[in-house]
Amino acid sequence: MKLIPEKEPSAIGRDMHQLIAGLYPICRSITGNGVRETLGILQGYVPLDIHEVASGTEVFDWTVPKEWNIRDAYVKNRQGVRVIDFRKSNLHVVSYSRPVQQKMALAELKDHLFTVPDRPEWIPYQTSYYKESWGFCLAHNQLQQFAAEEPYEVCIDATLEDGHLTYGEYCLPGTTEEEVLISCHICHPSLCNDNLSGVALAVYLAKALQSLTRRYTYRFLFIPGTIGSITWLCLNERRVSRIKHGVVLAGVGDAGNFTYKRSRRGHAEVDRAFAHVLKYSDDKSVVIDFFPYGYDERQYCSPGFDLPVGCAMRTPFNQYPEYHTSADNLDFVSSDALADSFDKCLTVLSLLEKNETYLNQNPKCEPRLGKRGLYQSTGGKVIRELGELPLLWVLNLSDGGHSLLDIAERADLPFHTIRTAASALEECFLIRPSLLGPSALQ
Amino acid sequence: MKLIPEKEPSAIGRDMHQLIAGLYPICRSITGNGVRETLGILQGYVPLDIHEVASGTEVFDWTVPKEWNIRDAYVKNRQGVRVIDFRKSNLHVVSYSRPVQQKMALAELKDHLFTVPDRPEWIPYQTSYYKESWGFCLAHNQLQQFAAEEPYEVCIDATLEDGHLTYGEYCLPGTTEEEVLISCHICHPSLCNDNLSGVALAVYLAKALQSLTRRYTYRFLFIPGTIGSITWLCLNERRVSRIKHGVVLAGVGDAGNFTYKRSRRGHAEVDRAFAHVLKYSDDKSVVIDFFPYGYDERQYCSPGFDLPVGCAMRTPFNQYPEYHTSADNLDFVSSDALADSFDKCLTVLSLLEKNETYLNQNPKCEPRLGKRGLYQSTGGKVIRELGELPLLWVLNLSDGGHSLLDIAERADLPFHTIRTAASALEECFLIRPSLLGPSALQ
Amino acid sequence: MKLIPEKEPSAIGRDMHQLIAGLYPICRSITGNGVRETLGILQGYVPLDIHEVASGTEVFDWTVPKEWNIRDAYVKNRQGVRVIDFRKSNLHVVSYSRPVQQKMALAELKDHLFTVPDRPEWIPYQTSYYKESWGFCLAHNQLQQFAAEEPYEVCIDATLEDGHLTYGEYCLPGTTEEEVLISCHICHPSLCNDNLSGVALAVYLAKALQSLTRRYTYRFLFIPGTIGSITWLCLNERRVSRIKHGVVLAGVGDAGNFTYKRSRRGHAEVDRAFAHVLKYSDDKSVVIDFFPYGYDERQYCSPGFDLPVGCAMRTPFNQYPEYHTSADNLDFVSSDALADSFDKCLTVLSLLEKNETYLNQNPKCEPRLGKRGLYQSTGGKVIRELGELPLLWVLNLSDGGHSLLDIAERADLPFHTIRTAASALEECFLIRPSLLGPSALQ
Repeated sequence: MKLIPEKEPSAIGRDMHQLIAGLYPICRSITGNGVRETLGILQGYVPLDIHEVASGTEVFDWTVPKEWNIRDAYVKNRQGVRVIDFRKSNLHVVSYSRPVQQKMALAELKDHLFTVPDRPEWIPYQTSYYKESWGFCLAHNQLQQFAAEEPYEVCIDATLEDGHLTYGEYCLPGTTEEEVLISCHICHPSLCNDNLSGVALAVYLAKALQSLTRRYTYRFLFIPGTIGSITWLCLNERRVSRIKHGVVLAGVGDAGNFTYKRSRRGHAEVDRAFAHVLKYSDDKSVVIDFFPYGYDERQYCSPGFDLPVGCAMRTPFNQYPEYHTSADNLDFVSSDALADSFDKCLTVLSLLEKNETYLNQNPKCEPRLGKRGLYQSTGGKVIRELGELPLLWVLNLSDGGHSLLDIAERADLPFHTIRTAASALEECFLIRPSLLGPSALQ
Repeated sequence: MKLIPEKEPSAIGRDMHQLIAGLYPICRSITGNGVRETLGILQGYVPLDIHEVASGTEVFDWTVPKEWNIRDAYVKNRQGVRVIDFRKSNLHVVSYSRPVQQKMALAELKDHLFTVPDRPEWIPYQTSYYKESWGFCLAHNQLQQFAAEEPYEVCIDATLEDGHLTYGEYCLPGTTEEEVLISCHICHPSLCNDNLSGVALAVYLAKALQSLTRRYTYRFLFIPGTIGSITWLCLNERRVSRIKHGVVLAGVGDAGNFTYKRSRRGHAEVDRAFAHVLKYSDDKSVVIDFFPYGYDERQYCSPGFDLPVGCAMRTPFNQYPEYHTSADNLDFVSSDALADSFDKCLTVLSLLEKNETYLNQNPKCEPRLGKRGLYQSTGGKVIRELGELPLLWVLNLSDGGHSLLDIAERADLPFHTIRTAASALEECFLIRPSLLGPSALQ
Repeated sequence: MKLIPEKEPSAIGRDMHQLIAGLYPICRSITGNGVRETLGILQGYVPLDIHEVASGTEVFDWTVPKEWNIRDAYVKNRQGVRVIDFRKSNLHVVSYSRPVQQKMALAELKDHLFTVPDRPEWIPYQTSYYKESWGFCLAHNQLQQFAAEEPYEVCIDATLEDGHLTYGEYCLPGTTEEEVLISCHICHPSLCNDNLSGVALAVYLAKALQSLTRRYTYRFLFIPGTIGSITWLCLNERRVSRIKHGVVLAGVGDAGNFTYKRSRRGHAEVDRAFAHVLKYSDDKSVVIDFFPYGYDERQYCSPGFDLPVGCAMRTPFNQYPEYHTSADNLDFVSSDALADSFDKCLTVLSLLEKNETYLNQNPKCEPRLGKRGLYQSTGGKVIRELGELPLLWVLNLSDGGHSLLDIAERADLPFHTIRTAASALEECFLIRPSLLGPSALQ
């Protein structure tokens, strides 16, 4: 399998940014038409299936909630001027607000207003999913201009009714039924890094994988956060054991360093693959331990599933001030950062695809490399580029107990060097893939 | 179980110092009436049983020795003046000296005199348990004043005869038969840190535990060093498998930092509990590895028993000059140090009591914390104080394979935070105690 | 077993250097009379068996090559003067060159000449074992003096014909059939460190071991590099499982620090023995990890054998400029370095011989050391020198699961201290050798 993307990374970064720009205006929430509209656009990129799960469906300890749809919302002053206007930014309405149509004094209204006082230009993002309520979010500067004496007309023209939870699923079959799970959430309105960046990355990873031979089956989930992964896990409980590797994509477009958060297992193959790829990347990428907080890895790594699913991000969500504010906008995510995240994730998937375990067919003493064109002084291109050492490492450790990643780690060499050496040896029939991986022996 | 001592630590420190002061004048040895008198005083504090084991009893490779009792001892000069007088300090006589009544020149006498030349004011403490002998200890300054020409009258009015070895045992039953062993030695005469401090700490831990609900049965041993623990182990060999945790208390009243010496196993639950409590204490406490020297942990950790028994102390015995001299007196131990040792040991016992293993009753995905009053923005006191993270850690790792201490270590949070979170979750029936601990799974 | 060499190390170093000097002039290669002559000399030291394996014999993936013998070789200028003369240095001829008798211009000749331009005084060492070819090696300065216009007369009076591969083997039986393999290569012509130093070290270790009681059987191999170890492994495949420890000796005479390269297993007993001995030696000895390159450990550690065989050397072969040049001469190896290598290797062998596992015969509580003359204040020489602690460590850990090396490592004490303590305890019947080693329990 060769995992060369169809376009060079920088072009892909621009394409991803363009997709984000197209999705940015839509008012998404955990349910409702914003999610449907979003998935509809994504279907123009990858042929994903759209699933609808009825409100009230029991999913483990949770219940699929009502569907929320909003047409308009505003606060008008006495002059009938919209001093808060949903049409200007969908962040102005607390997500999942119940319908309201009422006049009230500022004092009463203020209980329903949210600002970020130390970032007076920014509108915060608020939700009220599991407690019926309503509210507006606005810039603190804007709030300062409200006059105390005025009565305000408050309108949230929304519906909160039985309907469905909507999510998208795209399955790209491989030569085996073993799966790689790639999950992102689609429940945020006009916020770019959290999490349109993850959506765009998932779409472009799917497109890149489409044209390639795949050992693994890839399952892409575009789901509302928390309730979406819980719903999917509940409906697909029997299928879960097929998942061999997985990654949650979240916040992958900001300018910070790439961060990988390990799965609960801590030393799963996907954890080691990310650590290896990041070790050999040219920047300050970071690997952090699992903790039971963050994105949907919380559900995938709950003790009843304990899946080998990590989380790829750049700056962790609680470590940048733009998080969950209007400042997480189209300028906050860059083509370069998106392309870099794409490149690293695709390199990891490529490593997992190619991380086979071989058996040395000549395990007693070294084979003669010279007569196979693999001897340093007399050999061909591969041996001239690599030297003998990677070949000798692969031969020495291909005892059925070491995958190529195991060998790369012990040899302290990049995976692609070890992989190239293995291919050269396989061509000479000096090694062949083991039917049982290393785990079978451990 | 709530392990709040009846008094605040500083008051307990003063009480412990007072008990030490009451025991200080008694001339103890490995056998004899000094031990009986000491145990009699302790019975005024805790209702301990007194055991008598006859001289000559075979205990593993050893034999219970003769009983030693002393009435008086002195060295008189030609004028009949007592130049060494047992009545002034019981350290003046080498412990276990055979009876003597004799006149002799200074040259001959000197073979039986012991001093500490580089600490000329201090009287050393000497014993001669396993070789019949006699001797006197005195300050080096005092020896300098002895006149060479004089004949001296030497008297040790002691008996060394078949009798008994005496020890005290106090068993405080818990709801299970699993035991915590707390052992201290009672064989030293007028020495405070070594080891009246350990005796006082054992007594006050016993008093504190009396009024509390206990999972474990606590067994307190007040025994002569070495021969006492060997005798007890020999007589109680069948009972030993009940001991789940244990600690030897020795030298816990000096001003040095608290030191915990690990059991032979090195990673027993008691070892990890001490390490955890000391990590979160506010000073320079030290954890050191096991070595087969020191106090009665030598016997408890002999390979035929290999019990999980460590040793709690402050400055290790061979690292302070006052050790085994008259300078280990009532001024050398302080109420504050005693109270601090008490507090740390009781915190460890409390941790062991509460270190349960739970099973998440909702292991597939996270449960809804909000509807149980445990969601950050809407929850009650516990969640406001702790935040969600400790709850999520407990839920995530309560798979039957992790005790609360395991969880605290992985979460890098204090045990009491994890314990509080577990209690809140248990009240909501989200977790319940596992009948099998984590060790059953490992 | 007492492993005291018959001579003091410095004398042994001089003897080893003398042996090297005697072997230095001989023109060795992987086959031929040079090897036979060398082994003949070694038979004057140890009664080794000489084996002849016919050319064409299949040995795993390899074939025993033709036998190479050379009588003379030169390049003459027009005046008939030998401008390159094999009689001056056997390095002048590329080892295994096919016969040549020809006149040619300098341009053509140059394709067959090898120099080291940045070391213009040195003659390089070149081989052409597995591709029929011929060539001359010379100092770069010498080449500069060749006149372009001259026709040169080239002669290599050699034979390359079916014959035999020759190697030497010396087996020194012990009380058990478990073997220690000591291997060195004998295929290099006038080069001293690589590898006459290894040959001399093997010979003198063999001589030292002859006069001693041995638990292990020692097998010394004097073989051509690569093809020799492959041939031996192929012919002795069934015997290989007897090898419990092994070491390849290579480059042990230069002035650099002693280096031990671990076996593929990484934590084999021989690896730990070398690490322990070097830790307590007085210089900057180095232990490095296994890598599948270097000397015959490549074959012994191939995955089909995975023998616990490391490599003892001083400066690793690719880290000194003299390597494979005429500068690796009699001045490059010193008696002191040879003696130091001898001393360290013999200490390691001694450790392996004495690394027994004992069972404490008194495992419940400590035994009384006093009544056996092992108590500090009353005991004999051993206890006065060692103190009690080594005795207590041996007693505490002699549970059948710890060898003496395990105990030394945990006690952080030198092996000989632990060994002395064990001997004292064994004399008192307090411990006895375990029939099963620690590995049986792990």
